[in-house]
Amino acid sequence: MSGNTFGVLFRVTAFGESHGAALGCVIDGCPAGVPVDKAIIARELERRKPGGDAPDAAPASTTRREADEPDILSGVFEGKTLGTPIAVIIRNHDHYSGDYDALRDVYRPGHADWTWEAKFGVRDHRGGGRSSGRETVGRVAAGAVAKSFLSQYGVVIQAWSSSIAGVAAPAPGDPSFSLALAESNSLRMPAPSEALEEILAKIERLRLEGDSGGGVVTCVVRGVPPGLGEPVFDKLDARLAQAMLSLGAAKGVEFGAGFASADSQGSLLNDTPYQSAATELLTPAMAPDGVPPMSFKTNNAGGVLGGISNGMPLEFRVAFKPVPSISKKQTTIDRAGSVRELVVKGRHDVCVVPRAVPVVEAMTALVLADMFLLQWRNWQRN
Amino acid sequence: MSGNTFGVLFRVTAFGESHGAALGCVIDGCPAGVPVDKAIIARELERRKPGGDAPDAAPASTTRREADEPDILSGVFEGKTLGTPIAVIIRNHDHYSGDYDALRDVYRPGHADWTWEAKFGVRDHRGGGRSSGRETVGRVAAGAVAKSFLSQYGVVIQAWSSSIAGVAAPAPGDPSFSLALAESNSLRMPAPSEALEEILAKIERLRLEGDSGGGVVTCVVRGVPPGLGEPVFDKLDARLAQAMLSLGAAKGVEFGAGFASADSQGSLLNDTPYQSAATELLTPAMAPDGVPPMSFKTNNAGGVLGGISNGMPLEFRVAFKPVPSISKKQTTIDRAGSVRELVVKGRHDVCVVPRAVPVVEAMTALVLADMFLLQWRNWQRN
Amino acid sequence: MSGNTFGVLFRVTAFGESHGAALGCVIDGCPAGVPVDKAIIARELERRKPGGDAPDAAPASTTRREADEPDILSGVFEGKTLGTPIAVIIRNHDHYSGDYDALRDVYRPGHADWTWEAKFGVRDHRGGGRSSGRETVGRVAAGAVAKSFLSQYGVVIQAWSSSIAGVAAPAPGDPSFSLALAESNSLRMPAPSEALEEILAKIERLRLEGDSGGGVVTCVVRGVPPGLGEPVFDKLDARLAQAMLSLGAAKGVEFGAGFASADSQGSLLNDTPYQSAATELLTPAMAPDGVPPMSFKTNNAGGVLGGISNGMPLEFRVAFKPVPSISKKQTTIDRAGSVRELVVKGRHDVCVVPRAVPVVEAMTALVLADMFLLQWRNWQRN
Amino acid sequence: MSGNTFGVLFRVTAFGESHGAALGCVIDGCPAGVPVDKAIIARELERRKPGGDAPDAAPASTTRREADEPDILSGVFEGKTLGTPIAVIIRNHDHYSGDYDALRDVYRPGHADWTWEAKFGVRDHRGGGRSSGRETVGRVAAGAVAKSFLSQYGVVIQAWSSSIAGVAAPAPGDPSFSLALAESNSLRMPAPSEALEEILAKIERLRLEGDSGGGVVTCVVRGVPPGLGEPVFDKLDARLAQAMLSLGAAKGVEFGAGFASADSQGSLLNDTPYQSAATELLTPAMAPDGVPPMSFKTNNAGGVLGGISNGMPLEFRVAFKPVPSISKKQTTIDRAGSVRELVVKGRHDVCVVPRAVPVVEAMTALVLADMFLLQWRNWQRN
Repeated sequence: MSGNTFGVLFRVTAFGESHGAALGCVIDGCPAGVPVDKAIIARELERRKPGGDAPDAAPASTTRREADEPDILSGVFEGKTLGTPIAVIIRNHDHYSGDYDALRDVYRPGHADWTWEAKFGVRDHRGGGRSSGRETVGRVAAGAVAKSFLSQYGVVIQAWSSSIAGVAAPAPGDPSFSLALAESNSLRMPAPSEALEEILAKIERLRLEGDSGGGVVTCVVRGVPPGLGEPVFDKLDARLAQAMLSLGAAKGVEFGAGFASADSQGSLLNDTPYQSAATELLTPAMAPDGVPPMSFKTNNAGGVLGGISNGMPLEFRVAFKPVPSISKKQTTIDRAGSVRELVVKGRHDVCVVPRAVPVVEAMTALVLADMFLLQWRNWQRN
Repeated sequence: MSGNTFGVLFRVTAFGESHGAALGCVIDGCPAGVPVDKAIIARELERRKPGGDAPDAAPASTTRREADEPDILSGVFEGKTLGTPIAVIIRNHDHYSGDYDALRDVYRPGHADWTWEAKFGVRDHRGGGRSSGRETVGRVAAGAVAKSFLSQYGVVIQAWSSSIAGVAAPAPGDPSFSLALAESNSLRMPAPSEALEEILAKIERLRLEGDSGGGVVTCVVRGVPPGLGEPVFDKLDARLAQAMLSLGAAKGVEFGAGFASADSQGSLLNDTPYQSAATELLTPAMAPDGVPPMSFKTNNAGGVLGGISNGMPLEFRVAFKPVPSISKKQTTIDRAGSVRELVVKGRHDVCVVPRAVPVVEAMTALVLADMFLLQWRNWQRN
Repeated sequence: MSGNTFGVLFRVTAFGESHGAALGCVIDGCPAGVPVDKAIIARELERRKPGGDAPDAAPASTTRREADEPDILSGVFEGKTLGTPIAVIIRNHDHYSGDYDALRDVYRPGHADWTWEAKFGVRDHRGGGRSSGRETVGRVAAGAVAKSFLSQYGVVIQAWSSSIAGVAAPAPGDPSFSLALAESNSLRMPAPSEALEEILAKIERLRLEGDSGGGVVTCVVRGVPPGLGEPVFDKLDARLAQAMLSLGAAKGVEFGAGFASADSQGSLLNDTPYQSAATELLTPAMAPDGVPPMSFKTNNAGGVLGGISNGMPLEFRVAFKPVPSISKKQTTIDRAGSVRELVVKGRHDVCVVPRAVPVVEAMTALVLADMFLLQWRNWQRN
Repeated sequence: MSGNTFGVLFRVTAFGESHGAALGCVIDGCPAGVPVDKAIIARELERRKPGGDAPDAAPASTTRREADEPDILSGVFEGKTLGTPIAVIIRNHDHYSGDYDALRDVYRPGHADWTWEAKFGVRDHRGGGRSSGRETVGRVAAGAVAKSFLSQYGVVIQAWSSSIAGVAAPAPGDPSFSLALAESNSLRMPAPSEALEEILAKIERLRLEGDSGGGVVTCVVRGVPPGLGEPVFDKLDARLAQAMLSLGAAKGVEFGAGFASADSQGSLLNDTPYQSAATELLTPAMAPDGVPPMSFKTNNAGGVLGGISNGMPLEFRVAFKPVPSISKKQTTIDRAGSVRELVVKGRHDVCVVPRAVPVVEAMTALVLADMFLLQWRNWQRN
């Protein structure tokens, strides 16, 4: 597999350019009988939109307004999947390609304009073509189907913005920390809006300066049965790492104690096992026969040991760089090789992190759905 | 692809348990005519060995002594690859399986003992079976072939220990920093041994305490032509991230400015392009037709833009957790679910980081060789 | 790869049910710069339609009339491919699903109704769902792109009906044989219509009897450079065999002398080599360096030796069974397990073979395009 | 997947040249707990050997005597598979490479000598290198593991020579037909040796003339549960067709009524369904929930409908061309492009068909094991 297809059994092929006719995905290998309809896909697409579905304003996002209505072309019959490929398309409507004419022959700093030409010899310059963040609608649509599949087994994926533009969200333990509130504000931070004033002020400052910010998304998955992951090359964390770094602005990923592990000691970092109740397992079929149920007193491992889920919550963080499109003046070169000064126009996010939250969840769902299906053949023994 | 095969065109299948008959790999898809012999594979295996080939003592490593002599079974004829699969095996000799009998029914903290049983219902308990770090000999053997392939195009991969047990190596710019010296000491740090005393002392302290340490490996690749990487799911950094997190003790990876990007601003982080000389490209075939040669004034991107190499050095860091096998007393449970106190015997590394250096290089080589072959069909246009 | 994705580098993912919203395909891995537009896809779809584009009537085909207008959603910019995934959809219009209501709970003999339920536990009963011959529109759309790619290298694929309902078309050497005429009649036979009276009469007789017929499609490809095919499992003929048997009604495939080889002798069957002119090769890059150009006095091998193209025309035949939908009364069982008498209504082909011709060509094009791209890395050496 | 790896979940990577150090395979994805030891692999390798294990002489085979002792290097622990990759090697011993020195610069008619050079620019000329029939030892070793896996579910694969050198074996219904006797004679024909005199005489005549013969292998698989096969591209028959045509001398394959279907009529060819007993299904998990058990009064389909197994015996035939190595004088060209007369020396089979029987079975087992694992995720619903 390579390029625009992801997964072995639960397999997504994504397509579409930012300003082409449509974007979308084909999901092959999803088992039959999974509830899927337009609404569950639309809901996730809505979360990905600029400003998303949060009740407050969307200070960090572009003002581009996309309808993003999904059209399910195949694979679903009478509200359930057929076992055949599920094709979903999202037509592009709101694109002022004219904004981009000036960019046909110039390479934007921090963007993939030049590398795509270096690779393919050509590019669709309108809105970054397929290197645009807009390509993630295909991922999110597919992720909605994967989430529906996973929810049958009690798997719950939740991501949030844990840091934006250098300002951290309240941490677990902080009085204002509330995971339940993460979807209630446009920053997707786990706190009431009033606790986020510093970050909102920082974003406003960046916007006024014509600059942009980055941030970190944290993702936690509960209800993952032990046994997921395909060593040695497709370990659960390895595939998640691929999934996360496949996102446009991602520059790093860490699991559990992550980079801090490097400075720790074995005696401090090893999570101590204890015997848990078998009933914590999802289904009897997933209970490893003759293997005692186990849990751990801490979760420095982030839910993965030796590349296989250990039944603890999966936990990882993804670092996103600042949006490269800024309205501050920058220097670059054009197709002729001449130096050019550039002020990027168009409608851009100041910080992509809140919108990355549902995308991180979608990619996580795709990895987990695939790992579930890959593990069936081992559960079968029971 | 999943499990024990990695890559699309330059494709490695690895096999072997820590205390089984042999470990090894089959490399399929390597073009014909690449110089390969026992010596180039043995040299890389030697670097992976406890203590490696460094002239000084090996304070961080296990005292297990493996011969690790590679046996090339196929795919090489008269010193060059045939284009057919290259099978390499390394027999296991020095294994005192008796050391492990006590571990048959107990699950070591921080190890994959229990998760492998939860997945497969069974495990080879001797030395961790296939979850052992020893499985990396197959990766290193394959990586040696990939390096030989890449060296035809001037690609040079060099990794080193940039931090061990919480103590950083001298940084670039520090008077004692010298990349040339990285292979001259057993820590694989880019400095003369005398500059590393603090780290050596820290390791010795950990050993005496029966504890262990982690660290960070930095990898830099020079001579990467622009255009490598297969968006959107098999971006160059995505595949490298998978490769790195597939390593047993890896807990995080970051590219270029990495996690620090998240706190920066677009105006500071965007690397400024300038026109470079076409002659810096590797071969005329790799020069993108009609696209101006480009270079960048900084390398915050770490050599990857939009998932495609941009001609700058690839640069990334991998965090490794401390070795979980410690001789300090720990609590765990056994197969019956009873609580057990455990002191891990056997010969173990205090810190695996120096030995991880050649493994990181090997995985990097495998990713790059595959990406080279995948890009051929685009270069062909010229 | 499995299921609805085909190919390694030139990779097609097909989707769509007979009476769903749309059918289509996503082509990933097609190099940039290949001329593709709606017209070249529409032309091939037209050939696949009942009655096709032949000037005479369509005595062998269903009277269902599909518009089959392709909509290119992505991957093509200013008339050429971008290197990104090319999504093409064909909306379904002319479907009288009511025709099929009676079939919701009954399993048609010779059809996949029951096996699809046995596999997935569910099916879209309308028109056979994805087991319908209509799914081939996705293949044909993708094949049109593959043909455009291949035509850049002078590869010409031509298939025809060599036997229908037990009556053979004129054979090469017969005075009425004319490959040029294969597309001029609705049977796609290489002869003037007047030479085909016996077959037309046989088809008419079958129609009147409410019965159906099968036939054989022969495919010849000229301009295939030597070196295509990936031993040992993805030999050129192995992949073509998979491609052909993936077609709904196909029951056999043979290459060159085929089944007749089994009764022959080595001294009669070996094709005698002779030195050909290097100029017969497509491009200098495809000329194997240091290997003499070669041709063969006969083509019993059908253009493949050891699974690799030998520069002679590829030649193979595919056997198709009679259309299972007949209006003669048949016995079957229904969902309750009760015996039922069945007369299949709806509009069905008497013989699918003429319409299979462009589908055989499309699948051939997909295999060859993939094999071209896979071979690039070997040609690169020159 | 391509080249030397076959399968999606039950995945075999084969390697080795005819006169290299060793041949073998790595099987990845085989579930844990399958009984595997040296003996079950050795038994199948024995069947593949010249003369095989049949009690009578081996009139059709080469006199080369290979020990073919398998060495299991990994993936098996205490007599059962671990779920990790199973590496098996078979060392080459009996190779008189000297026999082949004369062939270094000459291209044998009917062999892949020239096409491999055209592809790779180089070849191992000794015994055909990897294009030799000897490469099938890796397939047979892997097939033995697949058979052990399948036998857990009652799947029984049996192939035999149904025609050799133009003379057919007794057909089912013929008084001398006895499938039980197929393994009792060196021709692997389902009849007592005395009924095979005509064929033995024909082979002897070919040997004296320095010529060779081909033949047909028929394969029947009983106990295949309904539901195996992955439409639309990886239908059960499509993957079997690939598997069969990947064999060196195979020139055709047909399923059920095969090529004869093409001349039949729907009313004659459709197999009539009837309700069978649920108990005929292998396991309750494989019983499609809410779908009535079904069987068929005839088996023209050969056990596959719409690319999915229908519970009837799988039945197909593979045509093999005559061995191209003959001692009759032939004309060819050499590396310099000069015409050469050639008499192929060395020890060669007169007819490869009896030895192909276990290879056909092995490839069938590999396809079925993979299809079983791919279907697990659908059976899981029950």
